[in-house]
Amino acid sequence: MSRYWSPTISQLSPYIPGEQPKVDNLVKLNTNENPYGPSPRVIEAIRGSADDSLRLYPDPTSTGLRETVADYYSLTPEQVFIGNGSDEVLAHTFFAFFQQSRPLLFPDITYSFYPVYCSLYGIDYRTIPLEEDFTLNLGPYTQANGGIIFANPNAPTGCLLSREKIEQLLSHNSDSVVVIDEAYIDFGGDSAVKLVDNYPNLLVIQTLSKSRSLAGLRIGLAMGSRDLIDGLVRVKDSFNSYPIDRLAEAAAIAAYKDDTFFKKICLRIIESRERLNANLQALGFQVLPSKANFLFASHPKLDALTIAARLRSEGVIVRHFKQSRVENYLRITVGTPIQNERLITALKQII
Amino acid sequence: MSRYWSPTISQLSPYIPGEQPKVDNLVKLNTNENPYGPSPRVIEAIRGSADDSLRLYPDPTSTGLRETVADYYSLTPEQVFIGNGSDEVLAHTFFAFFQQSRPLLFPDITYSFYPVYCSLYGIDYRTIPLEEDFTLNLGPYTQANGGIIFANPNAPTGCLLSREKIEQLLSHNSDSVVVIDEAYIDFGGDSAVKLVDNYPNLLVIQTLSKSRSLAGLRIGLAMGSRDLIDGLVRVKDSFNSYPIDRLAEAAAIAAYKDDTFFKKICLRIIESRERLNANLQALGFQVLPSKANFLFASHPKLDALTIAARLRSEGVIVRHFKQSRVENYLRITVGTPIQNERLITALKQII
Repeated sequence: MSRYWSPTISQLSPYIPGEQPKVDNLVKLNTNENPYGPSPRVIEAIRGSADDSLRLYPDPTSTGLRETVADYYSLTPEQVFIGNGSDEVLAHTFFAFFQQSRPLLFPDITYSFYPVYCSLYGIDYRTIPLEEDFTLNLGPYTQANGGIIFANPNAPTGCLLSREKIEQLLSHNSDSVVVIDEAYIDFGGDSAVKLVDNYPNLLVIQTLSKSRSLAGLRIGLAMGSRDLIDGLVRVKDSFNSYPIDRLAEAAAIAAYKDDTFFKKICLRIIESRERLNANLQALGFQVLPSKANFLFASHPKLDALTIAARLRSEGVIVRHFKQSRVENYLRITVGTPIQNERLITALKQII
Repeated sequence: MSRYWSPTISQLSPYIPGEQPKVDNLVKLNTNENPYGPSPRVIEAIRGSADDSLRLYPDPTSTGLRETVADYYSLTPEQVFIGNGSDEVLAHTFFAFFQQSRPLLFPDITYSFYPVYCSLYGIDYRTIPLEEDFTLNLGPYTQANGGIIFANPNAPTGCLLSREKIEQLLSHNSDSVVVIDEAYIDFGGDSAVKLVDNYPNLLVIQTLSKSRSLAGLRIGLAMGSRDLIDGLVRVKDSFNSYPIDRLAEAAAIAAYKDDTFFKKICLRIIESRERLNANLQALGFQVLPSKANFLFASHPKLDALTIAARLRSEGVIVRHFKQSRVENYLRITVGTPIQNERLITALKQII
């Protein structure tokens, strides 16, 4: 607390990102990064753009990247918004749409940044408990609301909501903006982006940090009706006109152009996930069905914090959330086959 | 206006960045970019960082860059905050310190993004007219206020406020945060960063977009007491935990390490500015004394909009602001000697 701060600042409870330890030979399965690097074409694009043109501002509207994404998803560029990572896109989304007289609704177990945005912008919200099995029940989402947001697949559970249920939710809430945060959609889900033309209240948010191996470059996007995208652009242009740098834009375009590489990597991670899931179950873990690049697992005989601490001493880090209902779960990123093997070997000594 | 927008969104008047036309062979003197590219070591650093590590999140606190900047300015890393361009740093600053019961004060003629931030965050402000000669009179800044911000050198005038006057302002306003936006300080000014240890209410904001030729990479910074930096960190961690990507951080560190290159480029621009100033005056222009990488000039015989339009048809673009008191001025970025020569040649045909 400082006498110089705006009154709201001392009341914030900022988000705590997963650890980025600088330890060699660590098996880092705690922040859902892709175990494989980006496409070689991405690296080429960056090297090709690293020249004197860096003295010039980037295109403030990232036209090239918006056109590429629009082309990829059969949208128009006016239906695409680009931001400095999907966290920035989410922040602008909360500001642009959720400052309403009625409360925002989201699940009790979901991305822990959502309540932080609410606190930042003074947004009233209500959390809706997930079912016992961590699936989402549509019932409570028919109450009057000022917006709905959820992650699909959900984080940290990995559970996927079906397209049919999403359409029901959109139809029941035609007066509210419904945001689907698809950070993990490419690992087995089916993107709601195909519904954008039918539902003017739908905003789909994605990131290049996970399936496209570019967490280090900070690129996120939102796709929706022109009305919604225009709202985001108004916030962006009142905040920072040039959120995406020249190298990030070039890299992102190259990432979308190399679809063969992208699909190969996603498939490899899906296969590893299924193998890891089976191996964890063989050790007695209860594992939620995941369509993401991580697994959410608990063990009936040993508590999660103890397992996490012992794994850490074996050089393997996974993520634990101190939150009711899930305090006995660990979120484990799917790594390379070798990393997953090191995890299982370590667990065999612990369990 | 959309029924889905938060009520504040429709009332925003977003900032309009200078044009980034995609026309070859244009003499682009409209957005105060550096006419020279970044240090070769910056390019090397980027190429060296373009590898598989891009799959990993960057350091959320940009420790390496904060240490480099702290070292450069004899501060501690805790006195340094890094953001995605100085526009983002400014936005967080307005949010963190200027949401107060008393109005924020800034000059009537200054960076036109300041009132936009006020509108975004509902901040009450009062503009203080600059003197007839566009210098800043300290008198009105002794009134009760919830903060003070000004650019030094000022934009778009280029006028510099002396260190002595800055110290008076800081002493008179020990209960308010005083922000000095030093985007152009390296072109002949003396940074107030040396005062940071003496004035806990001082925040100095800088950018790598101008003197360090990295507008295309989006890196800005704030320097001040730990209290102020902690306030900014709280906002950042409630907005976007990872604002700086891996390539930008590596590039920025390399830019600070190559001080010889940096000083050479700044000196070259200062020399060009003085020559350009003399040449404009020889054509009858009235030119304000500038310590920035641009000149603010008006001609007694021909109005600024006409000159700008004719220059444009000659392939030279400069910036005009539709704002009372300065509507007959043009802001002209100092280019390379060849670019400046093309400007003068074009002007000779117009005047």
